[in-house]
Amino acid sequence: MSGREWPLGRLAKRLGAELHGDPERVVRAIAPLGVAGEGDLSFLANRRYLRDLRTTRASAVIVGPGDAEASPTAVLVLPNPYLGYARAASLMADTPPFAAGIHPSAVVDAAAAVSPEASIGPLAVVGAGATVGAGARIGPGSVLAPEAAVGEETRLVANVTVCRGVRIGARCLLHPGVVIGADGFGLANDAGKWIKIPQLGRVEVGDDVEVGANTTIDRGALQDTVVGDGVKIDNQVQIAHNVSIGPDTAIAGCVAVAGSVRIGARCIIEGAVMISGHLEIADDVHVTGGSAVAKSIAQSGIWSSGMPAQESHVWRKMWIRMQKLDEYARRLARLERQGSGRKTDE
Amino acid sequence: MSGREWPLGRLAKRLGAELHGDPERVVRAIAPLGVAGEGDLSFLANRRYLRDLRTTRASAVIVGPGDAEASPTAVLVLPNPYLGYARAASLMADTPPFAAGIHPSAVVDAAAAVSPEASIGPLAVVGAGATVGAGARIGPGSVLAPEAAVGEETRLVANVTVCRGVRIGARCLLHPGVVIGADGFGLANDAGKWIKIPQLGRVEVGDDVEVGANTTIDRGALQDTVVGDGVKIDNQVQIAHNVSIGPDTAIAGCVAVAGSVRIGARCIIEGAVMISGHLEIADDVHVTGGSAVAKSIAQSGIWSSGMPAQESHVWRKMWIRMQKLDEYARRLARLERQGSGRKTDE
Amino acid sequence: MSGREWPLGRLAKRLGAELHGDPERVVRAIAPLGVAGEGDLSFLANRRYLRDLRTTRASAVIVGPGDAEASPTAVLVLPNPYLGYARAASLMADTPPFAAGIHPSAVVDAAAAVSPEASIGPLAVVGAGATVGAGARIGPGSVLAPEAAVGEETRLVANVTVCRGVRIGARCLLHPGVVIGADGFGLANDAGKWIKIPQLGRVEVGDDVEVGANTTIDRGALQDTVVGDGVKIDNQVQIAHNVSIGPDTAIAGCVAVAGSVRIGARCIIEGAVMISGHLEIADDVHVTGGSAVAKSIAQSGIWSSGMPAQESHVWRKMWIRMQKLDEYARRLARLERQGSGRKTDE
Repeated sequence: MSGREWPLGRLAKRLGAELHGDPERVVRAIAPLGVAGEGDLSFLANRRYLRDLRTTRASAVIVGPGDAEASPTAVLVLPNPYLGYARAASLMADTPPFAAGIHPSAVVDAAAAVSPEASIGPLAVVGAGATVGAGARIGPGSVLAPEAAVGEETRLVANVTVCRGVRIGARCLLHPGVVIGADGFGLANDAGKWIKIPQLGRVEVGDDVEVGANTTIDRGALQDTVVGDGVKIDNQVQIAHNVSIGPDTAIAGCVAVAGSVRIGARCIIEGAVMISGHLEIADDVHVTGGSAVAKSIAQSGIWSSGMPAQESHVWRKMWIRMQKLDEYARRLARLERQGSGRKTDE
Repeated sequence: MSGREWPLGRLAKRLGAELHGDPERVVRAIAPLGVAGEGDLSFLANRRYLRDLRTTRASAVIVGPGDAEASPTAVLVLPNPYLGYARAASLMADTPPFAAGIHPSAVVDAAAAVSPEASIGPLAVVGAGATVGAGARIGPGSVLAPEAAVGEETRLVANVTVCRGVRIGARCLLHPGVVIGADGFGLANDAGKWIKIPQLGRVEVGDDVEVGANTTIDRGALQDTVVGDGVKIDNQVQIAHNVSIGPDTAIAGCVAVAGSVRIGARCIIEGAVMISGHLEIADDVHVTGGSAVAKSIAQSGIWSSGMPAQESHVWRKMWIRMQKLDEYARRLARLERQGSGRKTDE
Repeated sequence: MSGREWPLGRLAKRLGAELHGDPERVVRAIAPLGVAGEGDLSFLANRRYLRDLRTTRASAVIVGPGDAEASPTAVLVLPNPYLGYARAASLMADTPPFAAGIHPSAVVDAAAAVSPEASIGPLAVVGAGATVGAGARIGPGSVLAPEAAVGEETRLVANVTVCRGVRIGARCLLHPGVVIGADGFGLANDAGKWIKIPQLGRVEVGDDVEVGANTTIDRGALQDTVVGDGVKIDNQVQIAHNVSIGPDTAIAGCVAVAGSVRIGARCIIEGAVMISGHLEIADDVHVTGGSAVAKSIAQSGIWSSGMPAQESHVWRKMWIRMQKLDEYARRLARLERQGSGRKTDE
């Protein structure tokens, strides 16, 4: 990035930071400590990089209260430098301008309600009864099915599909390839043949939600799938039908959430986690990467089951031993009986 | 949903159900027991919800033979109430009408064969030599490559890609983002460089197949990838080249099936299962969620290896112990030798 | 496949193979040993199929030096028959012709630079400042955002999305549904609310890279995500922001690579592997299917942690034992103390 000039004094004021340095000095871009140069703003969010701070050539650095001394250059002091970086990057980012209006190649049904302040991109489709709020942007190749609703300032980047009747709140960001409101996987078995259960619910997505590329969120069977305000979802996540996700929960890439799961508020679900169907997960639960949640979690805490890779010959040996665990336990109990005369549990 | 009025007498007849109640009473929609009200049909498929049945305000409920007494309202008795619900929902669903014909914004090659009774949606592409059967619907943004074939009454919802020469049967339902017939991952190594193996086979999808959003099914290397009649596949599933899936098998979300796997008929593969390449899985095999199938399964049965998440401090302790299993086994064997004088297996 | 006629003499010359048989005999297609017939070329890459070689009806077979005798038909002898097959298939494949030029339904910004030798397919979008090299093909429904660059002879098959500023090298192949350059998952927490970190880096994809259907590669937060020359990525892979992948590494389907991971050259990452964030993986590392890489791997080797599925009743017993491992270890240590008087490690 490389954008407008920001005098440090103005930036400090916008960030609520304490400035040590010349308020007239300008920064134009953000860069990591190790590569930053003249005109760059950097930050120290992880004290592992303290050494890089000491030698940085950045024009200014965002640091925590204890690290101002270590900097060879101007500093903006904030209690949470990573958050300061997020805020500074947002301020300084050159958001590409967008022109309101409907691109001539888009296909917008006469019965759709598109705000004159919204933008409908090239080759997008907006169906009958769909609504698009002010400041919303429907990117190229995106499809808004009939009766779907997109709130104010929400952006569908490109090639996004929002199915019939789905409601997306305000200020959401849906990345390319996202599909919201496809049928849930509902089947009844009739003597070996699968009978489809019509998926009659919808998806209700709150405000300020981000959904990563190629993520899918299915519509409910009878009631709605619900994604709360402020939820952040990474790429290639699968959210099945009837799931409910509480506000401000974050879900990293490749997570699979099965049907009717209820996830609380402010949870952190790391990458590649699987959550079995019909479970309830309390507020503020943290599940570490690659874990398989197989029962409900009733209160806040950290849960894990990811198996760390070993060198294959070590892993093979462990696996052979694991398969014999039952035998070992029995042999251990037998020894105990022989040794002590006491009866022990296997 | 909320649609036409169905008198219970007519509904019972269509479902083959025994009606206890007024045949003239009408239902218009389906709802779960706990939220159903006047005009709603509900169902008791899981006896865990028996309490909800006793207090339901639904106008009628589908129940199993033993539960008619417990209902405070009219009942339709069927041996499998869940199947009854699936059937009733299908009957009562208001299928949006569709108009046959080619949308003026679609790009249909002059050498494609599109049934006059098919619908080609806005901004869809149909290539040379492609065929589209009667009653088929190619949704907005979908791409049918040259020589691809889509059977009667099959629906590509939106933004679906069907690659060159792929054949899709009748009455299939392909959700948004589905890709059928991309190249399989075929590579030969030449002194550290990968040489692509042209993927010359196709994909053959049977009748009555459902494919979930963003699922991918690759074309075969030399022969075809085959998906049998009645197969149901959920979202974000990956089916690699040369795989064959028997009729009426169901595959839940985020499953990964590696190349040349042969899966039998009527299998149930739960979510996030991984199946290694070149395996054969018999008919009627059930693999539970998150398992990794690493060898062939020769006969019907239930298979598992999903690791249930624990609180992280418990899991860490387990993991440390697992890494020492080899040592424990050796120590156990040594104790046995000392204790009994017998020689034992480690 | 079924294409032009190839006399064996000419084919042997192109492949650098030693021919045993009539140089005038022709082949037109490639087929597996067991199904090949008159006019087919086959190959023996796995000696497990030696029996099929003895009875094949192929017109010619590519074999290794030791297997020429076993063939009932003409042979082309090569040190690596699988590589020979890859090469022969490439030579013999009928590549569909493509016409350079911009389809009238495509939307190409006046400020884009499209080579007159490139092809822009139906309903594709090319944004302002984007560049498309000679021989490149932008397939139907694909979106090239502003400032994106696609190198010579690179192909975006269909419905591919390349985001703003992303650079794709020459001779790449991007399958349908691929998304390159969506925002990475960067968030800072502010008292329970997530603040988005603008993703200001780009993606740099080298030459000769293949990316499978519905795979996603995110843009960097500050610096670029980098995919080296000759990298091959299968379907539904997720590559997070700031990742770097060395040349000639192959990544199979459904792999999840978290942020800032550095993967070396010539690695093989099998299907459904998860790699945690900020790790470094050396050159020539091989990770087997379904493993979770949770720490850096400093040198070449094979790593595993995939849990092979067992019959569920066996698995349940193993799992119960695993949960008691801590107890068993304590009991074992107690026995050792009792038995020998020695102090032992638990």
